Amino acid sequence: GKVLVVPTDGSPWLSMREALRELHARGHQAVVLTPEVNMHIKEEKFFTLTAYAVPWTQKEFDRVTLGYTQGFFETEHLLKRYSRSMAIMNNVSLALHRCCVELLHNEALIRHLNATSFDVVLTDPVNLCGAVLAKYLSIPAVFFWRYIPCDLDFKGTQCPNPSSYIPKLLTTNSDHMTFLQRVKNMLYPLALSYICHTFSAPYASLASELFQREVSVVDLVSYASVWLFRGDFVMDYPRPIMPNMVFIGGINCANGKPLSQEFEAYINASGEHGIVVFSLGSMVSEIPEKKAMAIADALGKIPQTVLWRYTGTRPSNLANNTILVKWLPQNDLLGHPMTRAFITHAGSHGVYESICNGVPMVMMPLFGDQMDNAKRMETKGAGVTLNVLEMTSEDLENALKAVINDKSYKENIMRLSSLHKDRPVEPLDLAVFWVEFVMRHKGAPHLRPAAHDLTWYQYHSLDVIGFLLAVVLTVAFITFKCCAYGYRKCLGKKGRVKKAHKSKTH
Amino acid sequence: GKVLVVPTDGSPWLSMREALRELHARGHQAVVLTPEVNMHIKEEKFFTLTAYAVPWTQKEFDRVTLGYTQGFFETEHLLKRYSRSMAIMNNVSLALHRCCVELLHNEALIRHLNATSFDVVLTDPVNLCGAVLAKYLSIPAVFFWRYIPCDLDFKGTQCPNPSSYIPKLLTTNSDHMTFLQRVKNMLYPLALSYICHTFSAPYASLASELFQREVSVVDLVSYASVWLFRGDFVMDYPRPIMPNMVFIGGINCANGKPLSQEFEAYINASGEHGIVVFSLGSMVSEIPEKKAMAIADALGKIPQTVLWRYTGTRPSNLANNTILVKWLPQNDLLGHPMTRAFITHAGSHGVYESICNGVPMVMMPLFGDQMDNAKRMETKGAGVTLNVLEMTSEDLENALKAVINDKSYKENIMRLSSLHKDRPVEPLDLAVFWVEFVMRHKGAPHLRPAAHDLTWYQYHSLDVIGFLLAVVLTVAFITFKCCAYGYRKCLGKKGRVKKAHKSKTH
Repeated sequence: GKVLVVPTDGSPWLSMREALRELHARGHQAVVLTPEVNMHIKEEKFFTLTAYAVPWTQKEFDRVTLGYTQGFFETEHLLKRYSRSMAIMNNVSLALHRCCVELLHNEALIRHLNATSFDVVLTDPVNLCGAVLAKYLSIPAVFFWRYIPCDLDFKGTQCPNPSSYIPKLLTTNSDHMTFLQRVKNMLYPLALSYICHTFSAPYASLASELFQREVSVVDLVSYASVWLFRGDFVMDYPRPIMPNMVFIGGINCANGKPLSQEFEAYINASGEHGIVVFSLGSMVSEIPEKKAMAIADALGKIPQTVLWRYTGTRPSNLANNTILVKWLPQNDLLGHPMTRAFITHAGSHGVYESICNGVPMVMMPLFGDQMDNAKRMETKGAGVTLNVLEMTSEDLENALKAVINDKSYKENIMRLSSLHKDRPVEPLDLAVFWVEFVMRHKGAPHLRPAAHDLTWYQYHSLDVIGFLLAVVLTVAFITFKCCAYGYRKCLGKKGRVKKAHKSKTH
Repeated sequence: GKVLVVPTDGSPWLSMREALRELHARGHQAVVLTPEVNMHIKEEKFFTLTAYAVPWTQKEFDRVTLGYTQGFFETEHLLKRYSRSMAIMNNVSLALHRCCVELLHNEALIRHLNATSFDVVLTDPVNLCGAVLAKYLSIPAVFFWRYIPCDLDFKGTQCPNPSSYIPKLLTTNSDHMTFLQRVKNMLYPLALSYICHTFSAPYASLASELFQREVSVVDLVSYASVWLFRGDFVMDYPRPIMPNMVFIGGINCANGKPLSQEFEAYINASGEHGIVVFSLGSMVSEIPEKKAMAIADALGKIPQTVLWRYTGTRPSNLANNTILVKWLPQNDLLGHPMTRAFITHAGSHGVYESICNGVPMVMMPLFGDQMDNAKRMETKGAGVTLNVLEMTSEDLENALKAVINDKSYKENIMRLSSLHKDRPVEPLDLAVFWVEFVMRHKGAPHLRPAAHDLTWYQYHSLDVIGFLLAVVLTVAFITFKCCAYGYRKCLGKKGRVKKAHKSKTH
């Protein structure tokens, strides 16, 4: 079949790319739509890249992204960080929206896409442009996602979302919350409502303009036939789900490859102590010098060899056991038996590679869902979380020694690993199956709940409850009136009898 | 591993038996616990039968069951039918409970079970005895179920159950309900609350006595690690589910076998018109003569050969095209390309065999979930439903001719069939996988939602809402008071200025 792919740049693209590789291996053709200027979405053998023009250069794009990542390490007041994050969110949202406008108003491209008769649109709903395009071209859609703000995934699937035990994004609550944590969990969406509006409203107006009728954000996110969620219930807390949600957490662990000689050599040289893998992900290329030196100092205090993926300036106090590399085969290194620990920013890809390979973690969450991911792994005893801003060299040293020497961390992560890998179908095969399913059946209408056709008050049966209350109150009122009437009648008679009696005795 | 099986007699046992056959083929040993007196649970090569004594004979048991099934064909007033059904439910419930008491107080048997160190209990929660036993022996449990009254499956899994679009058992609503149907859907559980109490309360007291502490019904049904549901979203309406619910609808279609010569001959003799399969299931052995003759009359009016599974007296007007058999290989016959239609009581097994093989249906629902199953298949255009009490011979004839000659029925059932059979794992393999999973990991704690640890008002965040309301009201009240105070202050000043002004001018 023919797959039209509207990806979201950054780490979400990394696992979607694995799915495209497998779809290609099974004879499907994928066309990837992307702005000319982007971070990771480059030409590959297993798909056709269709780039469209956008009104900024790669340099401008890199400067904004770099500026965004540098803020991670600045200590600032909560409100200042909140407003800086809002500003960044706003910029990213405006840029994504502008890309979407460029795409949808590119008539030649739209005509070409229309003529190509794709069987399915595969898109990450963090960027709603894919949903608008799929709906506009009337092609069934499959969403491939980990997180979208504002609970749009729950709304799009009509999935119940009790805030009493499902922690909201960015709250770092666990699923067992105190009373005040539950209050925070309920209020948090209000604090994010600004982002929600900024992030999603423009696409609703864009779609309304395209369709010449009112199209809401919920209409857009309800369009997907199947949702492929990059999660599972080893990493995520169990919660209500819907039949068209498919869990493909760990899809990025799929294609293990043997280590290159360079890395084999590092491991062999590490002796009986083995190695520690350290990477803060593709988004972090520079750490402030003072912080980098504190980290280097701590790394020098453990007997393991540390492979540190870092493209910034080399800390002057780097110890002999620490090797800086521009890039490292993270998943394959974590799969090596001599790997003792993984220092990570707790992005979902890194955490899953840790789970897949059973390696305990020291987590330094930086942004987005990373704090929540770290909280979850800590709750399950699979690692230690450090606040990258406040942590000292000693904190990092102690955390490393804990996860390496305290057997409970290894036991917990191995237990999670065995639960995670014990499944009837591999995540990659499951993802490809459901994309093919939607192509074969032109969607999955039998998985679409009737809730989509109800208003919010019908869904919660408020009209039925109101009606029943009215009936009960009416019946109660009539009963009361009857009793009162009967009572007065009885009293009235007794009254007359008494009077008659009195007049006789006077 | 070792599997302790506490089945529910009747048709639920038929598909559980298939799972035991496969578990045995994969090297597991199953021990099936059953009262000596029962309907279907007989010795087989692939499990060990452990029967325990019960205080009634097979004859008494057959007489009660026969009496139960004869009522199907009697025309009676709704209230009379309701009270007769309640009485039957009550008897069945008392009998099941009595069996449970006999089992749990059979000390030798319990000691033996305890000593055998089973890895998992596989049970159908329609009969809660299995749950009590599993909890008592502290063995992880897997529930294998289609329906249990009183929404105990939703309570046991903490699964949301919005009554606005999920039709309750026995309401024959579809998932798109009118306002009044939604009112009926909300009220229906009240009408069934009598059965709920009769059906489940005795097991709670039995368990409380065993554990020497308060054990509720919800405690019992919450004990399962995994729920294997004999359903899927081709037959059932899509709704919220929980991660420990696994959908194995169609498990009974698994083991197709070639037809015997006898039945091959019937088919070959049927010529181009093919055959119709007719069976009202294992529970119906006798139909009142008048009704049987009306049915026989209608069957004689179609060109197809009718294979009618019927153990009652042969209707005198049976036509030549109708062949009575004591038993027939239902699934294999439905799998034959010459089979045109299936007359069924719409039990879930029969409906799934119809879906698996793509054969349109004429449905005569008799009891339990059959009315709901029939409604669903009718809503999906896969068959016609007849009221077995009111239908005339002509109604049956027209219904048969419709499903055979109107292509839309065949197209709809074939579409359902292709959706149903397009899955990554076969239901039987999925069922066995999850039984093995629970054995390997001694349960599935990672799939247990934290909702189990909340009270009902915490689950619905009523305490949080109450608190926030109180805060808002308090703030509003204080603000109001301040404004009022300020207002009075301002007014007070103006008042004095006016007075001073007045006294000057007088």
